[in-house]
Amino acid sequence: MEKTKFILDEKQMPTQWYNIQPDLPVPLPPYLHPGTKQPLGPADLAPLFAMELIKQEVSQERYIDIPEEVQEVYKLWRPTNLFRAHRLEKFLDTPAKIYYKYEGTSPPGSHKPNTAIPQAYYNKKEGIKRMTTETGAGQWGSSLAFACNLFGLELKVYMVKVSYNQKPYRRIMMETWGAKCVASPSKDTKSGRDALAADPNCPGSLGLAISEAVEDCVTSKNTHYSLGSVLNHVLMHQTVIGQEAMKQMEMAGDYPDILIGCVGGGSNFAGMFLPFAKDKLSGKKKNLRIINVEPESCPTLTKGLYAYDLGDVAGMAPIAKMFTLGHGFMPPPVHAGGLRYHGMSPLISHLHKLGFVEAVAVPQLATFEAGITFARTEGIISAPETCHAIRATIDEALKCKATGEKKVILFNHSGHGHFDMAAYEQYLTGKLQDYAYPEDLVKKALKDLPEVPAEYR
Amino acid sequence: MEKTKFILDEKQMPTQWYNIQPDLPVPLPPYLHPGTKQPLGPADLAPLFAMELIKQEVSQERYIDIPEEVQEVYKLWRPTNLFRAHRLEKFLDTPAKIYYKYEGTSPPGSHKPNTAIPQAYYNKKEGIKRMTTETGAGQWGSSLAFACNLFGLELKVYMVKVSYNQKPYRRIMMETWGAKCVASPSKDTKSGRDALAADPNCPGSLGLAISEAVEDCVTSKNTHYSLGSVLNHVLMHQTVIGQEAMKQMEMAGDYPDILIGCVGGGSNFAGMFLPFAKDKLSGKKKNLRIINVEPESCPTLTKGLYAYDLGDVAGMAPIAKMFTLGHGFMPPPVHAGGLRYHGMSPLISHLHKLGFVEAVAVPQLATFEAGITFARTEGIISAPETCHAIRATIDEALKCKATGEKKVILFNHSGHGHFDMAAYEQYLTGKLQDYAYPEDLVKKALKDLPEVPAEYR
Repeated sequence: MEKTKFILDEKQMPTQWYNIQPDLPVPLPPYLHPGTKQPLGPADLAPLFAMELIKQEVSQERYIDIPEEVQEVYKLWRPTNLFRAHRLEKFLDTPAKIYYKYEGTSPPGSHKPNTAIPQAYYNKKEGIKRMTTETGAGQWGSSLAFACNLFGLELKVYMVKVSYNQKPYRRIMMETWGAKCVASPSKDTKSGRDALAADPNCPGSLGLAISEAVEDCVTSKNTHYSLGSVLNHVLMHQTVIGQEAMKQMEMAGDYPDILIGCVGGGSNFAGMFLPFAKDKLSGKKKNLRIINVEPESCPTLTKGLYAYDLGDVAGMAPIAKMFTLGHGFMPPPVHAGGLRYHGMSPLISHLHKLGFVEAVAVPQLATFEAGITFARTEGIISAPETCHAIRATIDEALKCKATGEKKVILFNHSGHGHFDMAAYEQYLTGKLQDYAYPEDLVKKALKDLPEVPAEYR
Repeated sequence: MEKTKFILDEKQMPTQWYNIQPDLPVPLPPYLHPGTKQPLGPADLAPLFAMELIKQEVSQERYIDIPEEVQEVYKLWRPTNLFRAHRLEKFLDTPAKIYYKYEGTSPPGSHKPNTAIPQAYYNKKEGIKRMTTETGAGQWGSSLAFACNLFGLELKVYMVKVSYNQKPYRRIMMETWGAKCVASPSKDTKSGRDALAADPNCPGSLGLAISEAVEDCVTSKNTHYSLGSVLNHVLMHQTVIGQEAMKQMEMAGDYPDILIGCVGGGSNFAGMFLPFAKDKLSGKKKNLRIINVEPESCPTLTKGLYAYDLGDVAGMAPIAKMFTLGHGFMPPPVHAGGLRYHGMSPLISHLHKLGFVEAVAVPQLATFEAGITFARTEGIISAPETCHAIRATIDEALKCKATGEKKVILFNHSGHGHFDMAAYEQYLTGKLQDYAYPEDLVKKALKDLPEVPAEYR
């Protein structure tokens, strides 16, 4: 019988995170201060983040030790299994070999606690009592709730209203772990009240929820803010995924030709591909393809502009050079709340600009179709975000069927869809739709990019 | 660092089920035919079950090979991990060591597919095209949907109405795997129509849903019925849990003093304890305590009568000797649909009557309190059924705290509670209640036991 799972023991769990920064051929452009438009220093970030996280954000150390207390919590679900998708391959009748790394067995059901745990840990260690954050689909909010509970921190989560209404069970999950969760825009912040004054029915966006969480943070005592994606240190914490996957692919006797993952802010897929990208950057695996998958309705990498833009609607967060659709862009209410961010992590944007990673956009209906195929072959009901990666994987496997190529495809399965069954029902009953790329909205939003000094353009 | 998880590789997965029947000191009483009241023969069961399952039901072979096709599917999630609950121990400040076997990582989220897979397999192999079944909380219905989909069988699920309304996402899960699911009582069967005529607001019960599924089976072509608990072959399929747990406890260097599990029909806990019970029956581990946990509102083992009773409301299923509250008993609508059955598996009933296993009943509020404690220490949000086992585990660990005894407790964690968040919300907002033991309803239901020949009384 061929192996289905490649299983690591606790003692094979990575003890360091991999930081790609020293291996980049060109350094990352700096973050700019939203007021002065000059490069940010640690002091600018100190009101928001723990000092250790600020250091990690710009660190040039290749490996950073994972604190023992963080490793102890990781062991509640890590290492995660890597699967060979025998049944999906057979169903597609493809010569390709399909593997997936499954992050859905963490208590909150996704990859997100890989960074929530160290963020809560460092903040607790530095004397912080309370955290604020935003969440789209709720994967991040529930993960930080899980983490803050374990380290004894209070937490308030601003959840994008469209997801808050679609997914009440995610909110209850946060409450079960002791966190407070409100719909964004809320009346609890000026940013929220301004948005509600402009449009009482505003469905919210990640960019707006970030403004609320940052505002709450800077106007409260002993409080720090936490971001679940986009930033360098967040992506670095996720590299436990890729480091484990490398060992597991070695156990399987294969090395991927193609890596695939869905991207909103980019953290789950970066966590998978960064350790492999090291091999590509060094020239050891020049032909490795790294495919970022995004929704057609929010196509940051495939249609966005590479420019300095605000990270949030109100301009409270740092300005970052990234692929962006404009910080004022409100994406259509697709059922993939985790992929509705107007920007993309500066690190993935940089690698994309340099030509090291590719991007593809997929429509909503084909995405759910792929999710159903996966559920009916491999058994797992996947988050709508993850279904984007599955769609692209199936498409690549079908290309192999056409050409006869026996490519090795590895995708990152970022989480289960147990809190997304309402979306599945809408798909199964024909109530979902595709959204045309909102070109006019993007054009309008891109007119509103911040002015930055000439040397940063 | 102390170990948190005891992890088995695929090649350590059991290749045989353990059948306790040849090791029983007294044989099991026979099933009786609901019409003739005489012992059932294979021919009586053939309209309902695959012949291989009928053979397994009465087999005296100690070990039965697991077909390779079934093992291949098991590998989608098995072997499951066994955890040491370090954080819960610390929170309780107990000298007891607490271990749990976690069955929630299967695609449907519980132990149920351990038997759904072989049942679908044998039926497919014997030429059956369609299956019917009932489900309480939906764990069983979704597991059989998962299994039938993988083996290409149609499925219709009768879901107890109170759960159908409480847990719509379980229904959508079944539909995602291609099954049809209706609320029971339904208008699709005579049993259902009769119940609706007597009480249009009837909340349903497992006993009634069984009647509907059996009636649908015997009145349809190429159709068999499937039961998710109670029967000997079902419990035997679950022994993969206990066999794995024995290996994992050996890795941990411990042998349990106390085994704990929740019981409705009894299959998850029997799957855990039967391989250990072999040691107790043989005298090798005389002092092993085996504690069955049930809800106070449906206290079959602690308040029921040990007598022959119908398995379902309409009297279509075999008559079995078991602890029962009377087949007409409708339990209060507690949020533990899987534990609302009026009877108990004949095998557990028999072992209880012989004094080899104990039973305890716990109230609903204390059960959810235990579930919250578990979520906030070990991270996992548990099914309300599983919370019963957690409650009893915490109670035993607190006894150890009082006496200073370092007992080793192992409980079976039967599944996650991702589809039970509405129940958690009701608990967190103070809207749940305890139900007094409905003594009068039970007394009334027990008056209606079937007359059986003197030798079987």
